[in-house]
Amino acid sequence: MTDIATAQRLAEAVAAALYQRDHAARGMGITVLEIRPGFARMAMTVRPDMLNAHDICHGGYTFALADTTFAYACNNRNHVTVAAGCDIVYPAAAHLGDGLTAVAEEKLLRGRSGIYDITVTRQTGEVVALMRGQSRRIEGKVIPEL
Amino acid sequence: MTDIATAQRLAEAVAAALYQRDHAARGMGITVLEIRPGFARMAMTVRPDMLNAHDICHGGYTFALADTTFAYACNNRNHVTVAAGCDIVYPAAAHLGDGLTAVAEEKLLRGRSGIYDITVTRQTGEVVALMRGQSRRIEGKVIPEL
Amino acid sequence: MTDIATAQRLAEAVAAALYQRDHAARGMGITVLEIRPGFARMAMTVRPDMLNAHDICHGGYTFALADTTFAYACNNRNHVTVAAGCDIVYPAAAHLGDGLTAVAEEKLLRGRSGIYDITVTRQTGEVVALMRGQSRRIEGKVIPEL
Amino acid sequence: MTDIATAQRLAEAVAAALYQRDHAARGMGITVLEIRPGFARMAMTVRPDMLNAHDICHGGYTFALADTTFAYACNNRNHVTVAAGCDIVYPAAAHLGDGLTAVAEEKLLRGRSGIYDITVTRQTGEVVALMRGQSRRIEGKVIPEL
Repeated sequence: MTDIATAQRLAEAVAAALYQRDHAARGMGITVLEIRPGFARMAMTVRPDMLNAHDICHGGYTFALADTTFAYACNNRNHVTVAAGCDIVYPAAAHLGDGLTAVAEEKLLRGRSGIYDITVTRQTGEVVALMRGQSRRIEGKVIPEL
Repeated sequence: MTDIATAQRLAEAVAAALYQRDHAARGMGITVLEIRPGFARMAMTVRPDMLNAHDICHGGYTFALADTTFAYACNNRNHVTVAAGCDIVYPAAAHLGDGLTAVAEEKLLRGRSGIYDITVTRQTGEVVALMRGQSRRIEGKVIPEL
Repeated sequence: MTDIATAQRLAEAVAAALYQRDHAARGMGITVLEIRPGFARMAMTVRPDMLNAHDICHGGYTFALADTTFAYACNNRNHVTVAAGCDIVYPAAAHLGDGLTAVAEEKLLRGRSGIYDITVTRQTGEVVALMRGQSRRIEGKVIPEL
Repeated sequence: MTDIATAQRLAEAVAAALYQRDHAARGMGITVLEIRPGFARMAMTVRPDMLNAHDICHGGYTFALADTTFAYACNNRNHVTVAAGCDIVYPAAAHLGDGLTAVAEEKLLRGRSGIYDITVTRQTGEVVALMRGQSRRIEGKVIPEL
C-alpha cells in the first residue's frame, strides 16, 4: 500500500475509534462526513435544546461542533493531541433546524504544535463561525498502530 | 431606591428572565450563583455525556459554561448583547464529576463594545479555562424596563 | 473599463496613497509587493534595531509587518477600516537580515466587519507568524473616488 | 535576605540585562517603570515616525509596547521565555505625543506555560489596548544566577 493510502486508512480508523468513545459528540448528534490526514468535515443539526435565551444556537454548541472537528483533524495521524487554545468569531447566528457543517484544515504543523482553521457554515453556505485552534501533541497513540 | 440597588435589581431580573428561556444552559445543568451588574458567577457539573474520546470534559462544554456566564454578565444591564468573538485557553483538563465554577467580569465597556474576562475553575481551585470575550450590544431590551 | 479593472485600479491607488502617508511603514522599510481588492503582499527586512534581548526579531516588528499588510488589504476598497482586534502566533523566530514577506487575504466580509488571515514567511518559506485580524469599517474614504 | 527580596532583586537584575541588550525597545524609546516577579510596567511616547496612514499610532507600535512589557514580566524569574501567541484589541486610538503606559500581570503559570494580561493606557487613563499573551519557557537563563 502506498504511504498515502496507509495514512488515509489510519486517519479513518482513528476517527472511527474517537467517535465510538466520544459521548459528547454523539450526544450532540454530530456526524463524521469526511476524514483525511490533518483534515475533518463534520455535521450537526441545531436542536431545540441547543437554543439560548436569544432563541439562537448557543455559542457553546457552535463552538463544540467546531472544536470536535478540530479534534478529529489534529488527532487523526494517531498522536494524542489536545487543544491548547482556540479563538472563535461568529459572523452570523445559527437557528433551530439549521444544518451546520464544519471543516477543519491543518494550516501548520511544527514539532508538537499545530494550527488549524475551522469554518462552520449553515446549509445556505453562510459562515456562522470561524475558529482558529492551536494544538499540542502529548504522549500516546489514539489506537494501536495498524 | 439608590441607583446601585436599582441596577442590582435589574441585573437579577434580567438573569432570571434569560435563564427561564435558556434551554441550552438548563439542559447542561448550569446554575446561576451570583449576579451583579456586568458580572456573573455560574456552575456546572461534568456529566458522563460531556466526556470526549480522551475521557475528559469536551472543550465545547467547558466553553459553553464560560460563554453562558459571559452572556449573563454582558446582558444584565438589559441591553441585548451578543458575543462578537472569544478566545479560550485550557490550562488543565476537567474530569467526570468535577464541579466547575465560572466567573465573568467586565474588563472594559466602551460604546457598544465590551471586553469580559471569564475564569473557569474546578472544585480544587485549579483553573481549567481562561476565556476573553468581546461583546457587541445590538438593538433591544432583554426584559421590559422595571 | 470592467468592474474588475476599476476595483484593481482603485485598490492600487488607495495603497499608494496609504503608503505615502504611512510614516511608520516607511520607517520600518516595509515595501508593497502586490495589491488586489481585499488582498496585499508586503515585505520587510529584519534590521539590527529590530532585534530584542534574545537577539531575534522583536515580536512587535513581526506584528507590525503583518498588521500593515492587513491594513492595506482591508482599506483598499477605499472605505476607511480599522483593526478591531488581532491574534498572532509565532511558529518560528525571525533573525537579523531575514527577508520577511506577509500576505493578507480576506477570509470574510459581512456588513462593516471583516476577517483577514495574514501569513508571514522568511526567505526560506518557513512561517514565522500567523495572524488573524478583525476589521471594522468606519466612516470616510481613504482617497477621493476615482 | 528573604525569598521575596531575592526574587525581587533577581527580577530587577534580569530586567536591567534585558534592557541593555534590547535594541528594539530602546529604539522605540520604551522605558522601564516598575519590575516585580511576574510583573512589569513600562512606558512609551508616540512619536511622529510611529503614525500610520490614518494619522494615529500604528498598531504595531502599540503592540510592541505591550509585547515588550509582557516579555519583561514573563522572563524576570530568569527562565528564558518566549511568546507563543498573543491576542490584542484596540478599544481606542493613540495619537501623536500620547504618553502610553503598559502593565503586564501574570494571570496563570503552570509548568512551562503562562498567561499574562497586558493593559495599555494613555495619559488620560483611557485604555488603548488589551493584550493577552501566552508564554512558553524554553531552555536557558537570562543572566547567570545571582
